[in-house]
Amino acid sequence: MINVGIIGYGYWGPNLVRNFFGQKDCVIKSVADARPNRLELLAKAYPSVQGVLNADDILNDPAIDAVVIATPVFTHFPLAQKALQNGKHVLLEKPMASSVQECNILIGLAAQKNLLLMVDHTFLYTGAVEKIKELIDTNALGNVKYLDSTRINLGLFQPDINVLWDLAPHDLSILRYLHDEKPYSVNATGISHTHNGIENIAFMTINYQSGFIAHLNCSWSSPVKVRMMLIGGDQKMIIYNDVEPTEKIKVYDTGYELKSDEDKNKILVDYRVGDIYVPKVNNKEALAQVASDFIGGILEKRTPRSSHHIGLDIVKMLEASEQSIKNKGAEVKIS
Amino acid sequence: MINVGIIGYGYWGPNLVRNFFGQKDCVIKSVADARPNRLELLAKAYPSVQGVLNADDILNDPAIDAVVIATPVFTHFPLAQKALQNGKHVLLEKPMASSVQECNILIGLAAQKNLLLMVDHTFLYTGAVEKIKELIDTNALGNVKYLDSTRINLGLFQPDINVLWDLAPHDLSILRYLHDEKPYSVNATGISHTHNGIENIAFMTINYQSGFIAHLNCSWSSPVKVRMMLIGGDQKMIIYNDVEPTEKIKVYDTGYELKSDEDKNKILVDYRVGDIYVPKVNNKEALAQVASDFIGGILEKRTPRSSHHIGLDIVKMLEASEQSIKNKGAEVKIS
Amino acid sequence: MINVGIIGYGYWGPNLVRNFFGQKDCVIKSVADARPNRLELLAKAYPSVQGVLNADDILNDPAIDAVVIATPVFTHFPLAQKALQNGKHVLLEKPMASSVQECNILIGLAAQKNLLLMVDHTFLYTGAVEKIKELIDTNALGNVKYLDSTRINLGLFQPDINVLWDLAPHDLSILRYLHDEKPYSVNATGISHTHNGIENIAFMTINYQSGFIAHLNCSWSSPVKVRMMLIGGDQKMIIYNDVEPTEKIKVYDTGYELKSDEDKNKILVDYRVGDIYVPKVNNKEALAQVASDFIGGILEKRTPRSSHHIGLDIVKMLEASEQSIKNKGAEVKIS
Amino acid sequence: MINVGIIGYGYWGPNLVRNFFGQKDCVIKSVADARPNRLELLAKAYPSVQGVLNADDILNDPAIDAVVIATPVFTHFPLAQKALQNGKHVLLEKPMASSVQECNILIGLAAQKNLLLMVDHTFLYTGAVEKIKELIDTNALGNVKYLDSTRINLGLFQPDINVLWDLAPHDLSILRYLHDEKPYSVNATGISHTHNGIENIAFMTINYQSGFIAHLNCSWSSPVKVRMMLIGGDQKMIIYNDVEPTEKIKVYDTGYELKSDEDKNKILVDYRVGDIYVPKVNNKEALAQVASDFIGGILEKRTPRSSHHIGLDIVKMLEASEQSIKNKGAEVKIS
Repeated sequence: MINVGIIGYGYWGPNLVRNFFGQKDCVIKSVADARPNRLELLAKAYPSVQGVLNADDILNDPAIDAVVIATPVFTHFPLAQKALQNGKHVLLEKPMASSVQECNILIGLAAQKNLLLMVDHTFLYTGAVEKIKELIDTNALGNVKYLDSTRINLGLFQPDINVLWDLAPHDLSILRYLHDEKPYSVNATGISHTHNGIENIAFMTINYQSGFIAHLNCSWSSPVKVRMMLIGGDQKMIIYNDVEPTEKIKVYDTGYELKSDEDKNKILVDYRVGDIYVPKVNNKEALAQVASDFIGGILEKRTPRSSHHIGLDIVKMLEASEQSIKNKGAEVKIS
Repeated sequence: MINVGIIGYGYWGPNLVRNFFGQKDCVIKSVADARPNRLELLAKAYPSVQGVLNADDILNDPAIDAVVIATPVFTHFPLAQKALQNGKHVLLEKPMASSVQECNILIGLAAQKNLLLMVDHTFLYTGAVEKIKELIDTNALGNVKYLDSTRINLGLFQPDINVLWDLAPHDLSILRYLHDEKPYSVNATGISHTHNGIENIAFMTINYQSGFIAHLNCSWSSPVKVRMMLIGGDQKMIIYNDVEPTEKIKVYDTGYELKSDEDKNKILVDYRVGDIYVPKVNNKEALAQVASDFIGGILEKRTPRSSHHIGLDIVKMLEASEQSIKNKGAEVKIS
Repeated sequence: MINVGIIGYGYWGPNLVRNFFGQKDCVIKSVADARPNRLELLAKAYPSVQGVLNADDILNDPAIDAVVIATPVFTHFPLAQKALQNGKHVLLEKPMASSVQECNILIGLAAQKNLLLMVDHTFLYTGAVEKIKELIDTNALGNVKYLDSTRINLGLFQPDINVLWDLAPHDLSILRYLHDEKPYSVNATGISHTHNGIENIAFMTINYQSGFIAHLNCSWSSPVKVRMMLIGGDQKMIIYNDVEPTEKIKVYDTGYELKSDEDKNKILVDYRVGDIYVPKVNNKEALAQVASDFIGGILEKRTPRSSHHIGLDIVKMLEASEQSIKNKGAEVKIS
Repeated sequence: MINVGIIGYGYWGPNLVRNFFGQKDCVIKSVADARPNRLELLAKAYPSVQGVLNADDILNDPAIDAVVIATPVFTHFPLAQKALQNGKHVLLEKPMASSVQECNILIGLAAQKNLLLMVDHTFLYTGAVEKIKELIDTNALGNVKYLDSTRINLGLFQPDINVLWDLAPHDLSILRYLHDEKPYSVNATGISHTHNGIENIAFMTINYQSGFIAHLNCSWSSPVKVRMMLIGGDQKMIIYNDVEPTEKIKVYDTGYELKSDEDKNKILVDYRVGDIYVPKVNNKEALAQVASDFIGGILEKRTPRSSHHIGLDIVKMLEASEQSIKNKGAEVKIS
């Protein structure tokens, strides 16, 4: 039985508590939040769980085996570092940390202490992403050529991170999970409509050596919520519309085949438009699978799906995007 | 009565012929196309119009007052130059020409000869764009902050121009018409999935000094046709969905207001989500208005809505986008 | 402080418990369900509430002031009768009872004992229905001419009541609330695809003296869930799409005006198609308002919105529909 | 080469002329319309076709082999009768005639004269209906249990026929084509919002001995155009949405299977919700196929798909619906 402590009972924390509560093989021992009114809500809903005002009460508690950290990004590193130093497994909310350097220190520490370090990229556990992964892995799409994602809504302007650090981790984790190739470079542009210079609208292109390309459109300033991803193969293409309740994934038997031709001025493309297939998608709650993968990963000493490798790769892309925006959109290579 | 000659009877030519046919104050004297089978189709549909195989038969015909040019982009310049030199008014299909330099020569020639030089940016004459223009001009949106356009479908891979030169003129003309500010610079990225190096997917950011930003997503490789434009003001926002038959424009009484604050680390944003308003949009055929504006512009010696100024500005942005793609996405200033 | 007992902890019961739990001025003393596993669920979620296996433990409990009955329809009458006889206020799930006769007995008993008898027609408390009511009451639609509702999905085949008794109470309660006129007669047709002769698909027309008409299409055998209601006035028309998350109500500035004409063979109709308006609708949970109206109705001795008058009228229409189906669709007058 | 005359150049006539013009094996000799301005339009578009003001100029023209009649319904019978008497094949617009009696006289006359008598139920030639027919014929749906159609819009109030006679022929022809069983009886209800007593909203149930049921909802008074048909089988179900440009047909792998059970009070139903399949549908113009089937039927002496048998069956159902409305919705048996 794994004793779990959860730090942060704000927006996402209650979802974590609810889902870890439902796991076998683990018990939530305590939840930390510096705001007494948040702890009151906790007490009402989960009288058996101890609420503490200070995260250290969890980090220093020898009875706690694993810590879940759902706090602002800039606190991820110090909290996770202390947890690992104290011998606790760690599940970090996305993005993993504020910099590649921080991620590398945490990864090194986890390896040294033989602890599980995982990042909660919840989307990797949704029925929709699992179905797309299955379609790509069985080569149903043919050669995958591009991923194009739009994730926009009237969102809370974050005071510390820009819209890419806030929203793009979802798209980048899906991208990383579906397309195994290491990205070569990143371009990003954006705008801040506030006085603090933090972008509320931003665009990101991720370039690959193979000719695959990914593009992200993220915004806190859209009147409507759009969560739309196109994934194009030369055999079939997918539209993944996450706000659609019953038809999240549409597989288009549509493609284009390029014929080789010696004359560079001619192009020979075979187009095809065919049936559409809307596979039934598993509706299980993704966060329950995250919790299960974390606890199972600890018990079985295996790497979870949403590993720190994925977490690190995403921070690499985010860091590169930030540098590209500073360099007025110029290409930034990914180490 | 203006005598009109039309060069090019391919994809768009029949639409031009049909709409100029319906105009008063003008007569279509001849239509040129080098393909005999296209002239046969012309003869069937319009027995009264002369078909000629050689564009010169139009360009050199002293009875023709005005020439409409609907041919591949690289032929726009030589055909328009000759027409202007021969004293004929010119309506060019979009984009105006292959380079800023070509546009400038044509504009100089038209000024010198006192002839009308116009570009067919059809979208400026649609009921939808007219309604959006009206909403912006009456300040219904408040300060307009961004324009974000997606124009993707399974399109013909053009052998001579990339997807931005092919599709973006529509968005850029709307952008230029709705937002009067001169753009400061352009970033563009893209990918070619053919051996000829011509991008079939590309993205473009247009930067402005005021903090306004525009972004374009253009693709010939999407399984579905998307024609979606978001225009965000701080008071209201518009979604313009051109594939929607009856609800092309939705005006969201949704906005965010930024409160000034001395502390740069705090942001104070007032969000508002309210009613939606779907104005009825005029359904008239836009191309008939283009023809009318061209003929009226000649007769009344006035500048048409879709002027060569707009045509030039769009080629400036396209040229800059091409250079940015060559420079791996780096910012390219617009002269 | 009103002490409440809730009978039935099946599909709807937990929603009732959650919402009465959230009310001030009342306390849930006990919940009855004959199935021990349902009471276990109750104990887990609400350790402070007493679970009892026998409804009589609630009906005979002198400490209980008000009873909420969420059991199969055929049990509504005996349970409510006993509750009223024992001096308890009663909130009944829809439909109120199995027959007009049963309803009348309960109403008489409530009057005699001076107790509140209310029916849970939850839809009357939704933001969408409230907004439509407001639009009709302010004459925004002009003369309301028809209501046409489709309520279909792949539903559970009920073993004791047909699809009209199951689904139509929602539509009929909205109809009754929005259109005050007493219906004149009912026609109904339908089909049973099971061996028990209980209709799983049925259609109902409700006729009015004024020329207003209502029509209902109810089915347990549709592959998709449709909850669509059209309400047509001669000035404006409404589409109420309850499965739409953000645009539940669309008001069409569309209408037709009939000109009087002495010649019966001529019709003169003025059509108008105009803007569409999508009002923002209150998202509060309707069932919380039901609970509040019940408790408030008891304390303030006032008639709640979803009164037993409405409950009775709906059972009248259902009873007539059943008779019409038996009479092969023939008109059945409503007493 | 069949010489064709077309009577009526109003709303539908131009479509007929255009499509017969495109047929090989036939020539349009003349078109009749009593309105000179309609003949002017004809002359402009088809200078080679003769326009005549009097239908008799076609009916009495010995050079004409076949007549297409696109005039108000009450004129179908006299015009078709005269055409058949004069030895001409006849294509009638839907509905075939104003009564079963009229249809039977025309059918008898055609048989006696050995002429083709066909009705233009265009929908039977659409790619969508052909695909549904194919799915039903290959038993993909299992046992088909119901057809439920909604055909509503802001339509022209017809002065001579009610909304069922105007709109339902489309649905009834599809119903008749897809489901071969003879209907047993009809119920219909409706309302007239004009002073002439002609229903502008009406509902129709068609009953079958097998337990199959069909229902139609027709209206000229809806703010939106709906063309939606559900066809439910016990294995799969179809939604046919004719206003959807690219996804007209959706096949739901959803069904319910009824288990036999001796206890009449129990029902055992197996529900299944699965994938959705959107077959690509042929986009050819249906009316061209109608013209081709008519001309081919004459030349090859074969029964066309949209035969007078189908035409007659539809008038039988319409006549029964009219009687049912007069009888206040009571069941009317079909002879």
